[in-house]
Amino acid sequence: MDAHRITMLGTGLIGDFYTMTLHGQRSRDEVRVVYSRSESRGTAFKERWGIPESTTDLAAAVGHPETDVVVVGLPNFLHEEAVGLAAKAGKAVLCTKPLGRTAEEARRMLEVVESAGVFGGYLEDLCYTPKSLKAVKAVQAGAVGDVTWVRSRETHPGPHSAWFWDGRLTGGGAIIDLGCHCIEIIRNFVGKGNRPVEVMCHTDTLVHPIADEDNAIALIRFESGAIGQFEVSWTFRGGMDLRDEVAGTHGTIWMNHFLRTGFEMFTAGSGGGYVAEKAETAAGWLFPVGDEVSELGYVDMFSDMFRAIDTGGAPMETFYDGYVVNAVMDTCYRSARTGRWEPVELEWRGGSTRRITATPETYEGMVVIKREILPDGRHKLILKDPASGDFTDRVVAGA
Amino acid sequence: MDAHRITMLGTGLIGDFYTMTLHGQRSRDEVRVVYSRSESRGTAFKERWGIPESTTDLAAAVGHPETDVVVVGLPNFLHEEAVGLAAKAGKAVLCTKPLGRTAEEARRMLEVVESAGVFGGYLEDLCYTPKSLKAVKAVQAGAVGDVTWVRSRETHPGPHSAWFWDGRLTGGGAIIDLGCHCIEIIRNFVGKGNRPVEVMCHTDTLVHPIADEDNAIALIRFESGAIGQFEVSWTFRGGMDLRDEVAGTHGTIWMNHFLRTGFEMFTAGSGGGYVAEKAETAAGWLFPVGDEVSELGYVDMFSDMFRAIDTGGAPMETFYDGYVVNAVMDTCYRSARTGRWEPVELEWRGGSTRRITATPETYEGMVVIKREILPDGRHKLILKDPASGDFTDRVVAGA
Amino acid sequence: MDAHRITMLGTGLIGDFYTMTLHGQRSRDEVRVVYSRSESRGTAFKERWGIPESTTDLAAAVGHPETDVVVVGLPNFLHEEAVGLAAKAGKAVLCTKPLGRTAEEARRMLEVVESAGVFGGYLEDLCYTPKSLKAVKAVQAGAVGDVTWVRSRETHPGPHSAWFWDGRLTGGGAIIDLGCHCIEIIRNFVGKGNRPVEVMCHTDTLVHPIADEDNAIALIRFESGAIGQFEVSWTFRGGMDLRDEVAGTHGTIWMNHFLRTGFEMFTAGSGGGYVAEKAETAAGWLFPVGDEVSELGYVDMFSDMFRAIDTGGAPMETFYDGYVVNAVMDTCYRSARTGRWEPVELEWRGGSTRRITATPETYEGMVVIKREILPDGRHKLILKDPASGDFTDRVVAGA
Amino acid sequence: MDAHRITMLGTGLIGDFYTMTLHGQRSRDEVRVVYSRSESRGTAFKERWGIPESTTDLAAAVGHPETDVVVVGLPNFLHEEAVGLAAKAGKAVLCTKPLGRTAEEARRMLEVVESAGVFGGYLEDLCYTPKSLKAVKAVQAGAVGDVTWVRSRETHPGPHSAWFWDGRLTGGGAIIDLGCHCIEIIRNFVGKGNRPVEVMCHTDTLVHPIADEDNAIALIRFESGAIGQFEVSWTFRGGMDLRDEVAGTHGTIWMNHFLRTGFEMFTAGSGGGYVAEKAETAAGWLFPVGDEVSELGYVDMFSDMFRAIDTGGAPMETFYDGYVVNAVMDTCYRSARTGRWEPVELEWRGGSTRRITATPETYEGMVVIKREILPDGRHKLILKDPASGDFTDRVVAGA
Repeated sequence: MDAHRITMLGTGLIGDFYTMTLHGQRSRDEVRVVYSRSESRGTAFKERWGIPESTTDLAAAVGHPETDVVVVGLPNFLHEEAVGLAAKAGKAVLCTKPLGRTAEEARRMLEVVESAGVFGGYLEDLCYTPKSLKAVKAVQAGAVGDVTWVRSRETHPGPHSAWFWDGRLTGGGAIIDLGCHCIEIIRNFVGKGNRPVEVMCHTDTLVHPIADEDNAIALIRFESGAIGQFEVSWTFRGGMDLRDEVAGTHGTIWMNHFLRTGFEMFTAGSGGGYVAEKAETAAGWLFPVGDEVSELGYVDMFSDMFRAIDTGGAPMETFYDGYVVNAVMDTCYRSARTGRWEPVELEWRGGSTRRITATPETYEGMVVIKREILPDGRHKLILKDPASGDFTDRVVAGA
Repeated sequence: MDAHRITMLGTGLIGDFYTMTLHGQRSRDEVRVVYSRSESRGTAFKERWGIPESTTDLAAAVGHPETDVVVVGLPNFLHEEAVGLAAKAGKAVLCTKPLGRTAEEARRMLEVVESAGVFGGYLEDLCYTPKSLKAVKAVQAGAVGDVTWVRSRETHPGPHSAWFWDGRLTGGGAIIDLGCHCIEIIRNFVGKGNRPVEVMCHTDTLVHPIADEDNAIALIRFESGAIGQFEVSWTFRGGMDLRDEVAGTHGTIWMNHFLRTGFEMFTAGSGGGYVAEKAETAAGWLFPVGDEVSELGYVDMFSDMFRAIDTGGAPMETFYDGYVVNAVMDTCYRSARTGRWEPVELEWRGGSTRRITATPETYEGMVVIKREILPDGRHKLILKDPASGDFTDRVVAGA
Repeated sequence: MDAHRITMLGTGLIGDFYTMTLHGQRSRDEVRVVYSRSESRGTAFKERWGIPESTTDLAAAVGHPETDVVVVGLPNFLHEEAVGLAAKAGKAVLCTKPLGRTAEEARRMLEVVESAGVFGGYLEDLCYTPKSLKAVKAVQAGAVGDVTWVRSRETHPGPHSAWFWDGRLTGGGAIIDLGCHCIEIIRNFVGKGNRPVEVMCHTDTLVHPIADEDNAIALIRFESGAIGQFEVSWTFRGGMDLRDEVAGTHGTIWMNHFLRTGFEMFTAGSGGGYVAEKAETAAGWLFPVGDEVSELGYVDMFSDMFRAIDTGGAPMETFYDGYVVNAVMDTCYRSARTGRWEPVELEWRGGSTRRITATPETYEGMVVIKREILPDGRHKLILKDPASGDFTDRVVAGA
Repeated sequence: MDAHRITMLGTGLIGDFYTMTLHGQRSRDEVRVVYSRSESRGTAFKERWGIPESTTDLAAAVGHPETDVVVVGLPNFLHEEAVGLAAKAGKAVLCTKPLGRTAEEARRMLEVVESAGVFGGYLEDLCYTPKSLKAVKAVQAGAVGDVTWVRSRETHPGPHSAWFWDGRLTGGGAIIDLGCHCIEIIRNFVGKGNRPVEVMCHTDTLVHPIADEDNAIALIRFESGAIGQFEVSWTFRGGMDLRDEVAGTHGTIWMNHFLRTGFEMFTAGSGGGYVAEKAETAAGWLFPVGDEVSELGYVDMFSDMFRAIDTGGAPMETFYDGYVVNAVMDTCYRSARTGRWEPVELEWRGGSTRRITATPETYEGMVVIKREILPDGRHKLILKDPASGDFTDRVVAGA
């Protein structure tokens, strides 16, 4: 039984979620030292979570002699430095999303980890929600046939910390903050080996007085013909809307991770307290989630990471995945500027994927477009004459 | 109390829905004559609905001396001829969706009606669902602030009649069949006076062996900056998915018109019978709708049309609206070919609409990006320095 | 085509709903005269709905020479007098729920109508919601097998008018106001010919300073063994909760008529306006209904009544049904006092109904209690030895 | 950091769920030895979960020198013996639900544990679902005011193992199997110190050819006046229906733990695989749950138990709670026989609870029954004259 001692970098909301998870339930792992740029925030964090030490010395935190894993929960512009230090220290490094601010930055981080031979895990929690894990497994087992379309939507009224709003520090706006989740969720459903070929994206800044986009929509065309669609926003009202939809040739999946999970509460006022991340109201109809760190994927994410470290295998989400996500986001921004489909430029390691295909049924030399069962048991066929291209109805005996 | 005598053109599914509605509940109106290209279908329809006469003579049906309203429920390629005959006969004409196969055709139909001075109503039922009517009213009253985004989704496994599948007769595929609904729903929410400026559209034929698109996604940018988004498909599995979502600066609306309306049934097998339009299964978990002709908007649609005829006013949905929809669909097909945003070309009668605006709050010379209420009642402000562009957090006393 | 001229008695909320329905959409019927005990309310009502006359003379309203139908929308204690006058006038009379304050009163009303030979319709709207009508039809077609249990729940924060709160005028509290709906919904699902045999009921006055019950729960045992369960409350928070559930040997039905019907709206504040009957809030997450008079059954109810009048048939809900409901409510109050199951005393016209039965399958002389399909296709049987009463598992080849 | 070595007694479905949880994610605990009455089932279980030893010797398993905790996952009739052995061995004992077959048996188990001074935990998983934990906390914080009513429903098509069906081995039917969950869920919401005073229960055997009840409904009246209501069934169709509802003077909570949790899947057929416990179908619309062991409460339950063992405190669910549940179930069976409310006989340790009270507001000497806000901002009061008992409406200026 391997237990891990962790260096936690960062004391923001994500540091809290990570530590709550790492220390949660019957865990064998523990955060040994926490780094913050601010001594007071570091001390408060240390006390909040019962961590032995806090420090404002990044290198010392990473190099702490008793830790074997470094978790990067810092603002985006600090990821590269932190990953570099961890690689140099020969430690496993788990980096929060997005990996980099650009594909170029992400690629350098990928290289530094690969050349150092250390374990690199990409902390994309929303690919690990229990619903997503089960849904991906069902899709891989063929439950929906070939995936034709995936919609991933993440919207809320805007981030809690100042640095998120500064594109110079983050690399962009709502796409960098939220789109990275959606892209990787989509990739898990269409298949990691299904190359993202081109991207069409629209961005706008509609509500907040900022330089970067507070709303964006993108389409990603994959090699198979499947379309990934994401919608991200920092102007949504009503809480945090986290929904995924998958359409396939033989089925459909709908997932609601946050606002409608079978838990509904009306309160006339007092005693509501904390409802859920990004809830907007504390009275009226509220929609809490049960166990947030589990429902948002943190529990399964760290379990997968440690399992991979312990067994010498690869985690579900790697630094390479983080790099692909950055490459797609770069293409989103490019397309938003040019107003056209833009090719995704990336070093592709995923092989190739066949086009979605459905071999049509034939009936007396005609192509069967559709077969419907009538109330009386007979079948109604819609037929296409391959020669003329004409369509006709035909009612036939049932099977 | 004005009662209307109607000439019904067409005996397909839509003719059934229309007649069920016109004859429904305590109606004062009645279908007086029905036209079908096929004598047997006409006779069967006549008997099914207790209509005095059926005929295969289009001109005779339109010109029937006892009818004052002509309802066009024919395949798309027959709309123009029928509308022309009705205009010539000086009768009110109500035409099913889409108005034309192209904007050019729709424009000719608009002109023929306008120059004849007859009433022209566009039978866009899904803009009249009771939920939509109430939601549009709430939006107009300011319940969600400025509309920033509308998603309209209509997908099912494909149409029931052969002619729908032949783009030569219809003008296209899933966009012509379903997108016309979505576009007009979107226009009702962003405002009819909000000009559709440009369109980005992706189409593909993924499953059915046909020449036209069986899947499409489009973005429509309106003058205000609002984005309309539609998703249409003839390859959806699980029934008919009819959902609309509206996001605004101060609110959100979600509508599910079909598959999740508070009516859920599990049956181990027998006795299911007809569940709902385009239901795929007759056992397991089923999701019927209560009163389909009401829930799909037919009841309110005809009431609005007859109210407008009787009062000499305009209906909510006019031939001009139908023409705008065709113009947007033309642009969708154009964009799908060029792979870029394409301008919407149309004769615009709607005036102009201001850009979505949010005048930012200021605090001690800083721009307030976001204001959050902390559990202890204090407020956390995210502030932007207009000079440097830097962002900071500040916690202040509550209001 | 028969059109009806109606005498409307009463100008409260129910009078508004009734008149909105009677005048609604393309109706051929109209309210000709309205009676109110208050001249000002009568005048306001007349103007609100465009009714030719209002009066404070009950007999004159009922006897109005131009009306053929009398609709009783008065407080409970005035039903009997109004019905008596209508019967004397030889007019069809439609009476709102509950028919009487007690079974004895209801029985007298039934007799006066029957001996006068006039049409008597019981305006039990919630049995006519489009969902209920379709669900009852599915149940009658066998979709859920034998009905074993029906739950009908109607709760809200309490009625809008003063007289509802005075048991001397109404006959009771929440049971008289809301339980009457539930009992008749239950009867429609278990079958009108299924005799209610005995009742167990608990009542309490938990919140409001009144003499009658503001909360009640009852179980009704029917001849078949099916159990009807109702929960009524005047202390529910969050709006109006109208849900029905049906369990059968082969299926399940869940209906939500009000708070979750696929229409969800979040608003930060302004412009909400009227949301729905008994909504508690005008901001935050709201759950409007589309077309209230349709969704609550008023439209189908009056259509059924007029169809029955016009054809000389019986409506779905008769005065006899109203009498049965009163008899069950009397038993509820009796049981609440004695704390035990009490027999339902009533003149039964419904015949008899067989006990719910399931003839057990046998396997090699054993009784099959349950058959489950294993992932590998084999079947797992749980068997009971009829001699010893012992249970065993057995895995056998699939069918 | 305390890690535990566990003796697992029993290899049925519950043993699998328990072991999956104990070994789950990053757990520090492990099952060291498993006991089964059948050598082959024990061996299979051992291999399935990577447990070092299995045995058919109950005493040896309990007394295993390396374990400190005994988990009883055996059929009901074996609980007492197992608990006695564990107490004798001086080990912490965690016993699955129900504690005993009767209150008398449960009481003996309680006494043996208390007199031995060992830790006794009652494994009532459904009180530990993440939703329930958060909801109970919200209720305790006052979010819904005084609880007036709790409904807990657990129904499915019947248990998987033969012994469950034999009342001689279990103590009853659906109440013993499922009602024990509901009773304890209800107690958590109304308050553990709120004495269950009397019970009214109806049972019937409607579908299965067994001697015990396959359906039951019960009302439990607590000292505060709150009513607990449970519905249990072995004849439900459509999967496993696990829902709880809480009504309070100031709020409402609805929880759906299984069939509607924001995860919906339609599949035309292949690849569905295991959906969820007690799912009935593998095609059509399916409703899986994300992480079953988390959603059903197993994870939080064992965390609470071990936390209590480690800190010397009491778990949320104790043997005393198990005894109270058995006492209520005994009363259910008694009431089902007598057809009347029966007092709950038990040794009460919970103190006393005040009656639900709402001090009524007064207005000019009148009692305010209800206050409604009108669209124009004024308030409508329903007033009761304390002298005459008469009710009137009054519209006054808003607050």
